[in-house]
Amino acid sequence: MPAAKDWESKAQICRDILENSISKQWLLPADKLPTKQQLNVTKVPYTCGILSAEELDMTEQTAAGLLSKYQSGAWKVEDVTVAFLKRATIGQQLLNFATEFLTEEALETAKALDKHFESTGKLIGPLHGIPVSVKEHVSYGGKITHAGFVSEIDNIAKEDALLVQLLKKAGAVCTVRTNQPQSLMHLDCENNITGTTLNPYNLKLSPGGSSGGEGASMGFKCAVLGVGTDIGGSIRAPAAFNNSYGLRPTTLRNSGLGLHGVLGGQESIKGVIGPLGQSIDDLWLFQKALIDLNPHDIDTTLAPVPWRGELETPKNITVGIMMTDGIVKPHPPLIRALETAKSKLHAAGVKVVDWENYKHDHAWDIVSALYFPDGGKRIEDALAASGEPMLPLTRHALNYSKAISISENWDLNVMRENYRREYHALMKERGVDVILCPAYVGAGVKQHGAKYWGYTSLWNILDQPAVVFPTGMSVDKNIDIIEEGYSPLNEKDKAEFEAYDPELFDGFPITLQLAGKHFHDEDVLRAAKLVENVIKG
Amino acid sequence: MPAAKDWESKAQICRDILENSISKQWLLPADKLPTKQQLNVTKVPYTCGILSAEELDMTEQTAAGLLSKYQSGAWKVEDVTVAFLKRATIGQQLLNFATEFLTEEALETAKALDKHFESTGKLIGPLHGIPVSVKEHVSYGGKITHAGFVSEIDNIAKEDALLVQLLKKAGAVCTVRTNQPQSLMHLDCENNITGTTLNPYNLKLSPGGSSGGEGASMGFKCAVLGVGTDIGGSIRAPAAFNNSYGLRPTTLRNSGLGLHGVLGGQESIKGVIGPLGQSIDDLWLFQKALIDLNPHDIDTTLAPVPWRGELETPKNITVGIMMTDGIVKPHPPLIRALETAKSKLHAAGVKVVDWENYKHDHAWDIVSALYFPDGGKRIEDALAASGEPMLPLTRHALNYSKAISISENWDLNVMRENYRREYHALMKERGVDVILCPAYVGAGVKQHGAKYWGYTSLWNILDQPAVVFPTGMSVDKNIDIIEEGYSPLNEKDKAEFEAYDPELFDGFPITLQLAGKHFHDEDVLRAAKLVENVIKG
Repeated sequence: MPAAKDWESKAQICRDILENSISKQWLLPADKLPTKQQLNVTKVPYTCGILSAEELDMTEQTAAGLLSKYQSGAWKVEDVTVAFLKRATIGQQLLNFATEFLTEEALETAKALDKHFESTGKLIGPLHGIPVSVKEHVSYGGKITHAGFVSEIDNIAKEDALLVQLLKKAGAVCTVRTNQPQSLMHLDCENNITGTTLNPYNLKLSPGGSSGGEGASMGFKCAVLGVGTDIGGSIRAPAAFNNSYGLRPTTLRNSGLGLHGVLGGQESIKGVIGPLGQSIDDLWLFQKALIDLNPHDIDTTLAPVPWRGELETPKNITVGIMMTDGIVKPHPPLIRALETAKSKLHAAGVKVVDWENYKHDHAWDIVSALYFPDGGKRIEDALAASGEPMLPLTRHALNYSKAISISENWDLNVMRENYRREYHALMKERGVDVILCPAYVGAGVKQHGAKYWGYTSLWNILDQPAVVFPTGMSVDKNIDIIEEGYSPLNEKDKAEFEAYDPELFDGFPITLQLAGKHFHDEDVLRAAKLVENVIKG
Repeated sequence: MPAAKDWESKAQICRDILENSISKQWLLPADKLPTKQQLNVTKVPYTCGILSAEELDMTEQTAAGLLSKYQSGAWKVEDVTVAFLKRATIGQQLLNFATEFLTEEALETAKALDKHFESTGKLIGPLHGIPVSVKEHVSYGGKITHAGFVSEIDNIAKEDALLVQLLKKAGAVCTVRTNQPQSLMHLDCENNITGTTLNPYNLKLSPGGSSGGEGASMGFKCAVLGVGTDIGGSIRAPAAFNNSYGLRPTTLRNSGLGLHGVLGGQESIKGVIGPLGQSIDDLWLFQKALIDLNPHDIDTTLAPVPWRGELETPKNITVGIMMTDGIVKPHPPLIRALETAKSKLHAAGVKVVDWENYKHDHAWDIVSALYFPDGGKRIEDALAASGEPMLPLTRHALNYSKAISISENWDLNVMRENYRREYHALMKERGVDVILCPAYVGAGVKQHGAKYWGYTSLWNILDQPAVVFPTGMSVDKNIDIIEEGYSPLNEKDKAEFEAYDPELFDGFPITLQLAGKHFHDEDVLRAAKLVENVIKG
C-alpha cells in the first residue's frame, strides 16, 4: 500500500485543477462572507455585490425563461453564462460543490451560440445557451474522471460521455463539473480529493449525494440544469435536500455511455443518468431534447422508446399517498407535507388514495444484496490502490452486501423481476397512476448522516421513474414537533426518529417525491407538475 | 444419488403422458411405414392415406392462407385442427417430435372458435384457428415442464406462460407440445425422457435444437406456427435444418414470462422466445399479434416498443454477405447458396457488399464464457438430482465455460456491450442494413453432431434479430464437392470440414440466415421476404 503522502499528492492534482479553474475576480471579498451564524446562504448572491440585478434575474430563470429571452434577443448567451459563472464561483466559495470550472470552454461556446443566433435568427437547438453543471462521474473529454477515488485520478476520458455530446449538440453550455462522494455510494458528498460539499440552505446539513455537487449547484442556482446519476437515490436526494427538481428516469432511456466508475458491468441494479433542474418543465426539456437525438442508435444498451407527447395536465389520474414505507417513519415535516398534499389534491378534485405498502422490506433485502454482490471488493481494491482511507459512509454502504455466488446473484435477479412485476400489477389493480412519498425520511439530514436509502432505492429496484419537486413548504419547529411516546418499529426507525431535530431543521425546505409506472417517465412528469401546482396553489 | 431405475421411472411418467395423448386411430399402419432406406419422410402424409386431399391442402397452408379460408367460411377450424392433429400424429410416429398432444383442448378451442365465427361472422383475433405447436420449455398450465431434465419432472406449471396466454387470446389453437434436449443447451434434440427427435428431411440427420421438436413440427407441417426459444441458435438451427422459417427477436420484445429452466436469473446472455413458421408472413403475423397485445404492461422485463409498420418491400437496402465467419468455413452448399444469393440480389438491383468479419472470435470468447459462468453447476445439480446420465452434447456445452467470479462476469458484460455497440456502429458506417449468412456451418448435421454454434450465437451476443428462411435450393453432391487441398484454419474448422459428407447431405434443403440491426425486427423480416423472393425467383 502506498504511503499516505502518495494519495495526498495525487489528490492534490485535482485540488490544483479546481483551484486554478476558479475565476478569482468573482470571489467574495472577506467582508462579504457570511458569518458563522449564517447557515442559510441562498441569499448571498443578492447581498454580495458580485452580480448585477440583471445577472441575478438571469440566474433565477428556468430553461424556458432563458430560451424566451434568447429568442427575443433580449439576452445574450455570453452574458447569461458569465452571470451563472459568477454565481457558481460564489457557490464554490461557500459550498465547495465543484471539481472544475469550464469557464473558457463555456464562454467560447456561448459566443459561438450568440454568433449563430445573430446570423440565423434561430436558436441552435432545444437547449440553446442553457448553463448546465455536470457530475464529475460523467466523462468529460481530456479531463480526469475519478468517480470519487484517488486511485482513479489516473483516468483521463478520451471523449465526452455520449449524454454530454448530446447536450452540447442541443446547444447546452457546460459550465462546471461537480463533486461526489468517495465510491459514489453515499447519499452524501464527501471524498478525500476535493472534500465535502455543503448545503446552501443550511451549511450544517448535507447537500445529499451522490450527485451532491449537482444538488448544491441547483440549490444555489449555479446552473439551470444539472446532470446526475442515480443507483439508490443519487439524483433525488440532492434534488430533495436543495429544494430543487430531479428525475430518476426509467433505465434504458438515457445513455450512461461514458460514465466512469469501478462497478462497470454490474447489471442487476442499473444506475441511471438523469437531470436536475429548476422546474418540472426543465426536466421535461432535458429528457425530450436528449431522447429526440436518438441515443439508442449509438448506445445499444438503450431501448428505442421515443419521448412521447407534451407536458400537458393529466386528466383523471389517481395519486397514491405513501405516508410511510412501513420500515422507517418519515419525520413530522414530511408527514405534514404529505397530509397537506392529500387534502389539497382532494380539494382540487384529484383522486387520492392511501398507498398500502407492498413488501418494502423485501425490496430492500434484494436491492441491498445486489449493490455489492462482490462483497465490495471492487471498491476496496480501488481504495487500496491509492491507500486513501475508507470514509465512514463508504463503510456503511459496503455493510449492506456480502459476497455471493453467481448462482445466488441469479436468484436475486429473479426475485427482483418478480417484485417489479408484482408492484406494477398492484398499481394497475389499485388503479393508482403515481405514488407520492418522501424522497428521504427527513426534509434534510446532517452532514454524513444520510444512512437510510429506502425511500429512493425502492424506485431503483422497481425501475420506476421518480421525480423530486419542492412543495413550497418548510420545516416549522413549532408545528413539526417530535412525536411524543413514539415506539420505533426497528433499529433503523429508532435511529432516524432520533435524528430528527426541529431546531436544526427549522426553516429548511420540504420536497416530495412522485413515482410513476415503469417507462411512464412522461406521465410522472405530467403528474408531478399537477401535484406541485396543487400543493403550492 | 438415486438409483438409475429411479430416474427411469420418473422419465416414464412423461413417456406415458405422451403415449396416452396420441390418437391411435391416426397412426400409420405397419404397411404404410417408410422403409429403412427411406430417409426423407416429408411426403409420407401424401402416401399414407390418413389425410384426405383437402386435409393435405389444409396442412400445407400458411397462417394467412388459413385465415382467408376461415374468413370466407370455406373451412372450419375444427376440420383444420383435425387435419393438423392427424399429420402431427404421423409426424410423431416417424420423428418423435412431441412431448404431449393437446387433442381434447385443441378440439374444444376449435369448436368454440367456429361457434364464435358462426354467430358473429368475425374471426376472434389475428391468429384465429391457427394450429400452433409449443416447445415443452414454455409453461403450459397444469402440465409438467421439465426443460429437458428428469429431475424437473416434478415441476407442474400453475398457469400458461404469458406468451401462450396471449397466443390463445389472439385465437391460436395449441395442438401439441414438443421435444427438446437435456439442459436445453444443445443445437440438437436428445434427452433421457422422451428420447431423440429426428429430421423429416433425413432421418439420419438432426432436427436441430434446442427447439428441435418445433423444427420437426414445422418441417413436417404438424402445425402452422411454432413457439421456440433461443439463447445460442435454438430457434434458428431447427428452422434451418427443417427447411422452414424462424425468428430470433431482439430481447425485450417477446415475453419469456413462464419459461421454466434451471438457469433463471442469468441475464448476461438473455434467451428469447420467438416464432417458427411456414413463411416470413407467418413470423410477422405472430410477432404483430403478440406485441399488439402489450405484453410489456404485464411483463415488466420488456421494453414498450410497439410492432411497427407493415410487411412491405424495403427500398434501397444494402445486404452484407458473410461468406464465412472467419472461424469455421461453411460447407460448399452454403457457399454456393450465398454466391447465388449475391448474384441474384445484384441482378435484381439490390445493393450487395461483402461483409468483412469483425472480431467473431472475440464474440465467441465472450458469449461462451457467459453461458455457464457458474461453471455449469446449475445443470450438473439438476442432473445429479435425478441421477440421469449427462448426455454428450450437454458435456460439450458445459465445456464452453468455467466458473468465474461476479467481478469477472461484470468485465464480460462490459466487453459484451462494447462489442454490441461497435458492431452496430460498423453496420452504420458500412451502410449495411442486414447481413446474410449461414445459420449453421452445414445445410444439415448428423444426429448429435451439432457442435459449432458460432453462426447463430453471434446474433445472441449482439442481440440483433435474425431470421432463417429456405432458399429453395438443396445440396447437390455433384456440385457441392469437397474442397480439394483445403487447409483448415483451426481445430474447429478441421472438425467441421471433415463433417461434410456430400453423399449424406445430397438433396437436403439449404436455408440461410439474415440478421438485422438491434431492435429492427420489423426491418429484418421485410428484408428477408425480399431476399427470399429474389433467391427463389
